[in-house]
Amino acid sequence: MRRRALKRLAGGLAGGVAAAVPVPRAWAATEAGSGAAATSQRPLAPAGWTLEPGAPLVAPPYGQPASFEHDVIRRVARAPAMPGSGSAMTPLADLYGGITPNGLVYERHHAGVPAIDPDQHRLVVHGLVREPRIYTVDDVMRFPSESHIYFLECSGNTGSEWKGPSGLPVQFTHGLLSCCEWTGVRLSTLLDESGISPSAKWLLAEGADGAALTRSLPLERILERALIVYAQNGERLRPENGYPLRLIVPGFEGNTNIKWLRRLKLITAPEMTREETSKYTGLLPDGLARQFVFEMDAKSVITRPSPGHKLTAHGYYAISGLAWSGRGRIRTVDVSSDGGKTWRPARLVGAVHDRALTRFEADWQWDGGPAQLQSRATDETGYVQPTHDALVAARGVNSQYHYNGIQNWRVDANGEVRNA
Amino acid sequence: MRRRALKRLAGGLAGGVAAAVPVPRAWAATEAGSGAAATSQRPLAPAGWTLEPGAPLVAPPYGQPASFEHDVIRRVARAPAMPGSGSAMTPLADLYGGITPNGLVYERHHAGVPAIDPDQHRLVVHGLVREPRIYTVDDVMRFPSESHIYFLECSGNTGSEWKGPSGLPVQFTHGLLSCCEWTGVRLSTLLDESGISPSAKWLLAEGADGAALTRSLPLERILERALIVYAQNGERLRPENGYPLRLIVPGFEGNTNIKWLRRLKLITAPEMTREETSKYTGLLPDGLARQFVFEMDAKSVITRPSPGHKLTAHGYYAISGLAWSGRGRIRTVDVSSDGGKTWRPARLVGAVHDRALTRFEADWQWDGGPAQLQSRATDETGYVQPTHDALVAARGVNSQYHYNGIQNWRVDANGEVRNA
Repeated sequence: MRRRALKRLAGGLAGGVAAAVPVPRAWAATEAGSGAAATSQRPLAPAGWTLEPGAPLVAPPYGQPASFEHDVIRRVARAPAMPGSGSAMTPLADLYGGITPNGLVYERHHAGVPAIDPDQHRLVVHGLVREPRIYTVDDVMRFPSESHIYFLECSGNTGSEWKGPSGLPVQFTHGLLSCCEWTGVRLSTLLDESGISPSAKWLLAEGADGAALTRSLPLERILERALIVYAQNGERLRPENGYPLRLIVPGFEGNTNIKWLRRLKLITAPEMTREETSKYTGLLPDGLARQFVFEMDAKSVITRPSPGHKLTAHGYYAISGLAWSGRGRIRTVDVSSDGGKTWRPARLVGAVHDRALTRFEADWQWDGGPAQLQSRATDETGYVQPTHDALVAARGVNSQYHYNGIQNWRVDANGEVRNA
Repeated sequence: MRRRALKRLAGGLAGGVAAAVPVPRAWAATEAGSGAAATSQRPLAPAGWTLEPGAPLVAPPYGQPASFEHDVIRRVARAPAMPGSGSAMTPLADLYGGITPNGLVYERHHAGVPAIDPDQHRLVVHGLVREPRIYTVDDVMRFPSESHIYFLECSGNTGSEWKGPSGLPVQFTHGLLSCCEWTGVRLSTLLDESGISPSAKWLLAEGADGAALTRSLPLERILERALIVYAQNGERLRPENGYPLRLIVPGFEGNTNIKWLRRLKLITAPEMTREETSKYTGLLPDGLARQFVFEMDAKSVITRPSPGHKLTAHGYYAISGLAWSGRGRIRTVDVSSDGGKTWRPARLVGAVHDRALTRFEADWQWDGGPAQLQSRATDETGYVQPTHDALVAARGVNSQYHYNGIQNWRVDANGEVRNA
C-alpha cells in the first residue's frame, strides 16, 4: 500500500518530480522505529482539553493569536536615529499563504505612528486642478470603492545582502514585505472631482505624520491603478499602516504609498523632496545615482526552510516561499537545491494576483548531505530575478535600495539552515 | 467643470446607471453652504499629530486596531445554555472588501475554546483504511500545501428572519459569516497516505473540544476540495477558529468544518451523530426534516447602508454588500431600492473567488423619500437567491437552518435604516 499511496500522491503533483514524494515525520518515524512520541501513547485517549469546557465566547471580543504563537511578532531591525524612526519586520518564516495578517504587516516610519482622530483628519486636493477640494474621511468613504490584494515592499528590503550573505534570517533579510487586501477609492475618481489640468504631470502626496513624508509621483503611470485606501484585510487601516487614509500605488516602492495621507497636489515636475533626493536613490559605481526608480523588480525568497529552521529527519520537504513583482503577475518560480546549478519548476499554490505575494512550493528529498536552496522568480513581462553577482555587476554594492538578487540558504549536514 | 467631472465618473461606472453619480458629502455641503466643518478651518494647517513624533515602533509587536475603532468587535448573539456554548457575530456593517480579519472571524462553539498545546495534539486517521496513522501537527505541516480564500457560514445564520423582519442589525442577522485565506493540506493527500478502502463512503470528523463535535461527511463530494488547515490569513489558526488543526469543507455549513480536528474515520454510512440528527436538520411543514443539507445556498446582504447607519444627506450613496454561494462563484448580484419591484445590476468590486465572499456595489441616488434596499445573488450554477416568501412557501417557518432569503432594509425619510 505504501508504494501505491505514494505513487498516487506523486502522480498528483505538478512538475514531474518523480523522486519527490512525501515522507512525513510520523510515517518516517514508524518506518524507522523511532516514532516513540507518536506511537507509544493511546492515540484516541481524550486530552485534558477535551474533558472540560473551554474558554468562553468573545474573550476577547477582538481576537488574538494563540499563546503558543507568542514568538510570531514583528521585530525591529535597528535602533532609530530619532524617536519613532525605524522599521519592524514581518516574520515571514512563520507565515503561510499570501495574505499578511494585519497585526504582522511590516512597519517603516520616519517619525513614529501618529494617533489621528478620523473625525478631525482632512484630505486636500489642490494644485493644477480646476477646483481644489477638502475631504473628510467620511467623504472619501462615500465614493465607489474597489478591493485588491497587493504586496507592499520597502525599497530598502534585503539591502543587507549587497555585500554578500549577511548571516541574518529571512525576517531580517526580507521582512520589509507584506501583502493585504486593500479597499479604497481610485485616485482617478477623486482627482476627476477636482478636474485635472492638462499641465498636471506629477502628483505630490504628503503624509500627516511628524515627518510629513512627501513624494512626487508620475501621474499618468499611477492614475488608474492607485487607490486612496481606508481598509486593509477587511477592517479599517491599522494606525501603523496609515489610519485613517493612505495611498496605495501597486508595485511601487513602499515609501511612495504615503500613509496618513493629508495632501494631494497636482504639479508639472517632481518637487525633489528629501525622500527622492538624499534618500531613496541608488548610488551606482560611476558616482551617478538612479532616481525615481518606482517599481519593485520581480523577486522571490524561500521562507521554509530558512535560517532558524532545523531539518530533523532526512526525506521529503515541501520547500515553500513567496514571489512577487511590481510589474504584474508572477509567471513562474524555479527552485534549486544545489546552489543554482540545476533548476526545476515550483508549483504556485494559491491564487496568482496582479502585484501580490504569490506562494510557491517545490518538493525536495533531503539526502542528509549539504545543500543550497534558491528560488528564482519570472514575472509576466518575462523579467527574470537576477543572481547576486549579476545585480552587483550592474549596480555595484552601494545602491542600498531595490536589491532583488536570488537568495541562497545553506543546509548543513546536521540540518541547520544558514544564510552563509 | 462639475458637470464634466461627473460625466467622466459616470462614464466609468458599469451598469449604465446614468442618474447615479457621486455627490460626496464635502462637495454637497459646499454646494449647499452647510459644510462648516470642512471649510471654516485652514485646510493645510498641520494638526497636532503632525507637529510631534508619533508612537514608537512595534508598540505592540503584534499590532492592534486603531483605538477609534474600539466598537468594531464580535458580539454574542444569545446567552449560552452551558459554559462556552454560543456564538459571536462578525461586525459586517463595519467591514470592507472580502477578507475578514482574524480578530473578527465569527465564533460558534459547543463547549468553549480549548487551549490545545500543538506539541501534544494528535490527528488520527483510521477506520476503512489499509494503515491507520497518527500525525503530529508538524507532520501535517510537512505535506504539500494549498492556500484558498473560502467563506464560512453557520447554517443557523439569518435564522432570525424566518418569521419576518426581526428588527436586528446586520451583525446579528448575518454575522455568522466570515471569509479567510486558508492554508493546509488536501484531505485526499492525507487519506492517500493511509490508503482508502473501496468500501469507504463517508468520513467521520471529530473535534478535540469538550463537545467532541462530530459530523459525517460524504467522502466523494469533499475528497478533492476539503483541506486540513493550520493557517488563516497568513498566520496559524486562532484558538477560537480551531488551533492547531481544523477541517475546511468549502461551501458546506459551518459546523462540518470541524475545529480542533483530532480524528478522521472512514466509514460506510453516516454515524447519525447528535449534530446531524437532533441538530442541524431542517423541519419542514409536513413534519419531515431535511437532513445532510451541506451546501450553503447562494445568498447576499447589503452591509452599507444597513440598520444602525443613518443617511445624513440626500444624493449619492454607493450601496455595498456581500454575496456568496456554497456551490461555486457568484455570477451576478442585482440591487433594488424599491423593495424588489425593479432591479439593476451591481458591480463586483474585488476578485471573484470560488466559494468566497464577493463584494458588490451599486450606485444609488437617495431622493430623501422612503426606500427599501434589497440585493439578490445569482451563482455560477444559475441558482437565484429566493425571496423570503418563496423560501417560506417551500420550507415553512420552522426550518431554523439554511435561511437565504432576500433581505430588506427600510430607509425612512429621516435617513434611519431599519430591519422592518
